[in-house]
Amino acid sequence: MGAATVTDTPHPFDPLSLDEIETAIAVVRKAHGIDLYFNVVALHEPRKAEMTAWLAAPESAPRPQRIADVVVIAPGNKVFDGLVTLDEPKIIKWELADGEQPIITMEELQLVEHIVRKDPKVIEQCVISGISVDDMDKVFCDPWTIGYDERFGSSVRLQQALMYYRPHIDTCQYQYPLDFCPIYDADKMEIIAIDIPEVRRPLSTAPAVDYHPAAVEARGGYRNNLKPINISQPEGVSFSVTGREIEWQNWKFHIGFSYREGIVLNNITFNDKGNVRPIFYRLSLAEMVVPYGNPEHPHQRKHALDQGEYGAGYMANSLSLGCDCKGAIHYLDAHFPTRNGQSRTIKNAICIHEEDAGILFKHTDFRDDSVIVTRGRKLIVQQIFTAANYEYVVAWVFHQDGTIQPEIKLTGILNTYAMNADEDTHGWGTQVFPGVNAHNHQHLFCLRVDANVDGPDNTVFVNDAVPGEAAVGSPENYYGNAFYSKRTKLATTGEAITDYNGATSRTWEICNPNKLNPYSKKPVSYKLVSREALTMLPKEGSLVWKRAAFARHAVHVTKYRDDQLWPAGRHVPQTSGEPSKGLPEWIGDGSESIDNTDVVLWHTFGVTHFPSPEDFPIMPAEPMTLLLRPRNFFAGNPVMDVPPSYASTPSQLLAQGSGVLDAADKISKLAFSNVNGSNGDSCCATDGNGNGVSNGH
Amino acid sequence: MGAATVTDTPHPFDPLSLDEIETAIAVVRKAHGIDLYFNVVALHEPRKAEMTAWLAAPESAPRPQRIADVVVIAPGNKVFDGLVTLDEPKIIKWELADGEQPIITMEELQLVEHIVRKDPKVIEQCVISGISVDDMDKVFCDPWTIGYDERFGSSVRLQQALMYYRPHIDTCQYQYPLDFCPIYDADKMEIIAIDIPEVRRPLSTAPAVDYHPAAVEARGGYRNNLKPINISQPEGVSFSVTGREIEWQNWKFHIGFSYREGIVLNNITFNDKGNVRPIFYRLSLAEMVVPYGNPEHPHQRKHALDQGEYGAGYMANSLSLGCDCKGAIHYLDAHFPTRNGQSRTIKNAICIHEEDAGILFKHTDFRDDSVIVTRGRKLIVQQIFTAANYEYVVAWVFHQDGTIQPEIKLTGILNTYAMNADEDTHGWGTQVFPGVNAHNHQHLFCLRVDANVDGPDNTVFVNDAVPGEAAVGSPENYYGNAFYSKRTKLATTGEAITDYNGATSRTWEICNPNKLNPYSKKPVSYKLVSREALTMLPKEGSLVWKRAAFARHAVHVTKYRDDQLWPAGRHVPQTSGEPSKGLPEWIGDGSESIDNTDVVLWHTFGVTHFPSPEDFPIMPAEPMTLLLRPRNFFAGNPVMDVPPSYASTPSQLLAQGSGVLDAADKISKLAFSNVNGSNGDSCCATDGNGNGVSNGH
Repeated sequence: MGAATVTDTPHPFDPLSLDEIETAIAVVRKAHGIDLYFNVVALHEPRKAEMTAWLAAPESAPRPQRIADVVVIAPGNKVFDGLVTLDEPKIIKWELADGEQPIITMEELQLVEHIVRKDPKVIEQCVISGISVDDMDKVFCDPWTIGYDERFGSSVRLQQALMYYRPHIDTCQYQYPLDFCPIYDADKMEIIAIDIPEVRRPLSTAPAVDYHPAAVEARGGYRNNLKPINISQPEGVSFSVTGREIEWQNWKFHIGFSYREGIVLNNITFNDKGNVRPIFYRLSLAEMVVPYGNPEHPHQRKHALDQGEYGAGYMANSLSLGCDCKGAIHYLDAHFPTRNGQSRTIKNAICIHEEDAGILFKHTDFRDDSVIVTRGRKLIVQQIFTAANYEYVVAWVFHQDGTIQPEIKLTGILNTYAMNADEDTHGWGTQVFPGVNAHNHQHLFCLRVDANVDGPDNTVFVNDAVPGEAAVGSPENYYGNAFYSKRTKLATTGEAITDYNGATSRTWEICNPNKLNPYSKKPVSYKLVSREALTMLPKEGSLVWKRAAFARHAVHVTKYRDDQLWPAGRHVPQTSGEPSKGLPEWIGDGSESIDNTDVVLWHTFGVTHFPSPEDFPIMPAEPMTLLLRPRNFFAGNPVMDVPPSYASTPSQLLAQGSGVLDAADKISKLAFSNVNGSNGDSCCATDGNGNGVSNGH
Repeated sequence: MGAATVTDTPHPFDPLSLDEIETAIAVVRKAHGIDLYFNVVALHEPRKAEMTAWLAAPESAPRPQRIADVVVIAPGNKVFDGLVTLDEPKIIKWELADGEQPIITMEELQLVEHIVRKDPKVIEQCVISGISVDDMDKVFCDPWTIGYDERFGSSVRLQQALMYYRPHIDTCQYQYPLDFCPIYDADKMEIIAIDIPEVRRPLSTAPAVDYHPAAVEARGGYRNNLKPINISQPEGVSFSVTGREIEWQNWKFHIGFSYREGIVLNNITFNDKGNVRPIFYRLSLAEMVVPYGNPEHPHQRKHALDQGEYGAGYMANSLSLGCDCKGAIHYLDAHFPTRNGQSRTIKNAICIHEEDAGILFKHTDFRDDSVIVTRGRKLIVQQIFTAANYEYVVAWVFHQDGTIQPEIKLTGILNTYAMNADEDTHGWGTQVFPGVNAHNHQHLFCLRVDANVDGPDNTVFVNDAVPGEAAVGSPENYYGNAFYSKRTKLATTGEAITDYNGATSRTWEICNPNKLNPYSKKPVSYKLVSREALTMLPKEGSLVWKRAAFARHAVHVTKYRDDQLWPAGRHVPQTSGEPSKGLPEWIGDGSESIDNTDVVLWHTFGVTHFPSPEDFPIMPAEPMTLLLRPRNFFAGNPVMDVPPSYASTPSQLLAQGSGVLDAADKISKLAFSNVNGSNGDSCCATDGNGNGVSNGH
């Protein structure tokens, strides 16, 4: 434990190395010329059949080949999808993706602002807004994909520029939104149109309220009443890392990183008393969509599918010790191509650390105050990505008891639009600051669960907590207290299109019907417990409903197929949603059996955000979370062997405390030694007289 | 900051001191004899009108009197409710509570097991179960209130004894449940009946799987791969305490402790830039009920209203440094009467500490990687209580941004019942271990929110996230993306009887309609965000439905009245629910206006638990939580003055990083210095070249 080993040969799940990226680029350039923009050079994931054979017998089975998935834009805005083998470098696939727009890179986004500032028609609009022509350096834009705009279709590569102004370079621009929206043609590198609203909203003249240190100092300075909390691990961490495989508290899994999904966890297993049991083949956030609820044109275009359109990997922050997490941290870097065919590294794109998790279990016997109290620990694999104004903190939290807890925190800054002083927001937004309308929006995430619960053949059930059917007063339910968990099998992809039901505290059970728990005789399972399921509010038939079909329901289940990774499709920018890509294509007529086979569960969760002034100018983090919990998976509590902080038994108390286990943390101390009655030296002391009256324990 | 002051005069909200308890007992004994059992001697809370006058002008307004609320059982099982003034000791109220049963004390529970073991009919049943008459010292029982059993009514004070066996004194008895249930008369101190099932279930012979250290050692010992995580606060804590009033990060409130509700928080205010704004007059968990779902007699009696029947205060654990929480801890003791008219102290019944809360806010500008990252802190006021088999960890978490987060963790041990090897549980329970049937159950908690949002006159609204009404394609909603927060005023107590709606992500808004946010022009409010709302599964008309009426709906709202504290009534044991006590009485015909007046919101939340073998023999903690969030309450983000860990601005990066604020925690370090590329010395380093390509920041 507590060691890290660097591996020479890449694991088949490893993201491409810098060398591999460069090799792929070189091969492509040799074949197709140097005049290419590289949007993607990433791991083409191993075919599952090959990979599972290799995982089962790495010594004897063939090692899956390393293959690069390449997407380039060639002159004339021609998009090509390619595959390049890396062991023996060659192109094995090269296809024109006609009329499709690949992911927009950070570099493409960076280009727009400079062009916007120089465009005469934009300058004209700035002047109309009240900005001097000499102040165009104070005009900024957040370039977004256009989503889909029927006036332009899918063939022209476009961005829309959400416009802002900064009175000072350090001022938060979201306080000064402008009311017009230029449209940028990425191929021509020019502004081809400007959407101008009928009602004009001149530049706000409200004084700024900024969050940067100079602004805070000017308002009276920082609070000085926070004493440090130091977190240290003098003996190091409790996990070990081999390449990108991590082992911690019976867990073992591979940590990948995709330009698109960010963190990808593969081959998640749990060592159950020597029996290494598979649970998930692959876990990731596979897509998301952030629809805004203001129906006025062109705000319908604000519905970023951030992962498919920009990439949670491409937008990853480089993380820092003591800032983004505390304690003893292990980082993993991310490697990507540059647009022009170089490579780049995001240092510390992933951080891995442990945290104390509070009480893992406790029980006191009220008769004699004999007690056991054991503290838990969690492992956190985290990334943060910045999608223009918003920050997403994505953490995969592993618990010792077999629970996996994906957790997302939203922070950063609201997307804002200009409003006039007397303007009615019509309920589609909130004035969070003078002249600033923050529109209602949702954050809908799609968790992709490639299940492998004790093997690949799994079935998904819906579990609803319901009263017994028999009436109050009937012999079967005389006192009316009967209730049970109603299980409904989702036998086909059509049946599996399911929504959350808060009234029944609905959960989804991913079980292996071929393996029964020895005691409960129920199938071993992992249960999806998600109270953050929500309804996508754009209506049926709406643009968002068509483009982000995955978000129409809380859960979909499909039969596993290679390359069905991204539920809004492979190339997402400027899809029209006619027909909807991704999940609806894979589900088809809904008749395919998903019973006792290799299945993938897709879960939509998130939050609906009606902004409020306390979210502005920067938003205190808002967390959301869900659980993947073992149920009937283990034969008993899997954490009884975690050392307790304190344990006394009835017989020990009868023997005046002889043999009591006291391993309480001796670092903790009383806050105020002058006023506490107890001195803090003895942990969980009990008088052992068993009367249970004078003290708790 | 970081100081504690002891006060001489009790605060009007303070629980009774040992002296005050003893004074009240002495007065009562003098008047009514020494032959009394004291079930309650507790603070009779100040009348709100007097108290708010005093809080507004403590120098000039009359200080509310100290009064003891006393409940005694006199000979002949006669229950008396009394009030005793303490400044000038005298009884000001003394009333017979005819046919009512006051709370059952720990001491009363402790008496039963000894009597059960000696009862010949119990011994007979033990022998039938397969226990030797010589092994009656291995027979244990968890005495519960009988709830309500129509055969015995409410006048006889009863307990039911849930029976268990321990092959060894240290063995977890819940592995060996017995199938019969003696009924104990507390007045006669004898067993008056035994419920014996038709189908008998002899004592299990399965070998025990225990969680105590000797058992774990015998199975191979504890895991040795957890390295310590040390949490220290070398400069002390960031809160100060005066008596039982705490100040932390703009929060100020009084921490009381009731025999019944446990932690009671009063007069919660937030210092908003010098303006001390009231938010809640009183917050507590006011009641709970744990119905079990097996309809077979007598399991319907298992539906503990733990707070009204036993008391979350009376059952409180004495907490310990480094076991129940880590860091620098401040404890508060609890003082109670003993049954025989003495006093007792639970040392460290409440713990108070701070924790690092991860990222409070962060934003990176994608143009130039200028960044701010600020860590949050939380304050936790916590207690743990043991209700026979279960442990409840109740934490009141305060965040710097104005959010209050009540959080409950369930741990301890499942209530279990015997089952035969070939028995069908009929879905009402799960075999979690050979011969052990753990019945389905719910934990329903009632959060009582005595609102005071910028003053006492508040109104509650339901907020539903819904699509705009206009059809897709219509001019008002052409692209179909319109959505908004639909506010529905709960104008009367009848209208306020509301359920959760998962499909609309329903929240409840407690607002002050007389005060508008300066920017949003919406009423200042606190929003109840609770995704753990659930349906009470015992049916309408069932025993539980009648007795625990508060749990029928997610939210009720009443007009404030003194003494309407406990929603299942004042004396809960053996209530029949005919008529239902507490909330239904206060709501009446539902016509009372609760618009713009002093209101109390009652919220039911919790979890439905279908047991599983991994919960046994001791249950890994299962958390649930909800939020009380400021919305439109502040004019802006209230935590911008929390010192950041790191902050750089665009102008600083243009100036080669001059002036960048780097206050990152220097205690954090790399997990493995040998394999990380970065050396960990520089925090949030950026190359400052603003190309946003080579590094995140």
